[in-house]
Amino acid sequence: MEERKISAAVIRRLPRYFRYLSDLHEQQVERISSKQLSELMGLTASQIRQDLNNFGEFGLQGYGYNVNYLRDEIRKVLGMDKINNMVLVGLGNLGQAILRYNGFAGKGFIFRAAFDRNPTRIGTEIGDLRIRNINELNEYLDSHDVDIVVLTVPKGAAQDIVDSLGERNLGIWNFASMDLVGRPGLTIENVHLSESLMRLSYCLKHERKMDE
Amino acid sequence: MEERKISAAVIRRLPRYFRYLSDLHEQQVERISSKQLSELMGLTASQIRQDLNNFGEFGLQGYGYNVNYLRDEIRKVLGMDKINNMVLVGLGNLGQAILRYNGFAGKGFIFRAAFDRNPTRIGTEIGDLRIRNINELNEYLDSHDVDIVVLTVPKGAAQDIVDSLGERNLGIWNFASMDLVGRPGLTIENVHLSESLMRLSYCLKHERKMDE
Repeated sequence: MEERKISAAVIRRLPRYFRYLSDLHEQQVERISSKQLSELMGLTASQIRQDLNNFGEFGLQGYGYNVNYLRDEIRKVLGMDKINNMVLVGLGNLGQAILRYNGFAGKGFIFRAAFDRNPTRIGTEIGDLRIRNINELNEYLDSHDVDIVVLTVPKGAAQDIVDSLGERNLGIWNFASMDLVGRPGLTIENVHLSESLMRLSYCLKHERKMDE
Repeated sequence: MEERKISAAVIRRLPRYFRYLSDLHEQQVERISSKQLSELMGLTASQIRQDLNNFGEFGLQGYGYNVNYLRDEIRKVLGMDKINNMVLVGLGNLGQAILRYNGFAGKGFIFRAAFDRNPTRIGTEIGDLRIRNINELNEYLDSHDVDIVVLTVPKGAAQDIVDSLGERNLGIWNFASMDLVGRPGLTIENVHLSESLMRLSYCLKHERKMDE
């Protein structure tokens, strides 16, 4: 599939397309028009055609989109046509919940190891994984193929862990409530839950809807 | 504080301003120039001045911003100058983690009750809260002042719960992996964790950085 330089707004929408197409696929829908998809997703049909045209010619006049084909192509674009190996650091409440959540594995995001610094947690098991000592993280990364490090540690600890990762190419899925200082080779995606809650509070107070 | 019609992009950044100003306040910094703040936050100084000018005249030429005052004003804009009462529905792993997370209460977002449909969970306690039967949700909302309903239920259950809320004005903080059909009076903020992970996967594959 050919690709042009894709705007951040389109990238933000892509996983949502994938989710809708996956739901349609599950419901055994084989094809869908941009108009039908637009009504489902609350976008305009022309927005959808424009978004998807970034990745090639998918729709056929009078036929619409082949759901399965389009879903597969978006899966590839998203880098989900392979297994993404993950490790998690920080087994507090949120870390344990993320590790136990079974919605990621089905999409090819698999937890391979989990690390903590708390001696009372090290050696215990969550699901299939034995919690390892955080000191072993680098050794583990040397000897295993890891794509993504999930950080569910307090904000005071997150940057030190990132700095300790050396020159490796990694994705960092950061739940710590701070902005990490990156470096070439690191790809950082932040999930700032408190900020999401504050946006809700803003919209509630001002009777405002957030646009996509 | 006077307010103009604020763009969604500015609203998205506001909680981040609040976070940085809170950190500065904690570090007992009393004032900061837009240049210093811009270096901290990775925005341009003119972007910061433009964003904050939406809410009034804060900066003084040659003095900069009064950290405490600006933080207080943003807190008001965000609707955080009052207690936001919350209830949580769905005590799976994620729901339990969110309920136990102690970073929200300090910002005035307080959990008052928690609900589940699973009889083995009803009556048990998490922290200070006894888990209630989901059937009691509407009765609870009738007799208590609730601002926000946090939905940590499977996607198959989320819409039914929203539909059962009647005509009430509420914020919905939705963790279910689906888009809720709203109605006037409901303010919905979605946290789609899987989509965040897919964006990371995209950026990792394409060596792409997401812009703010």
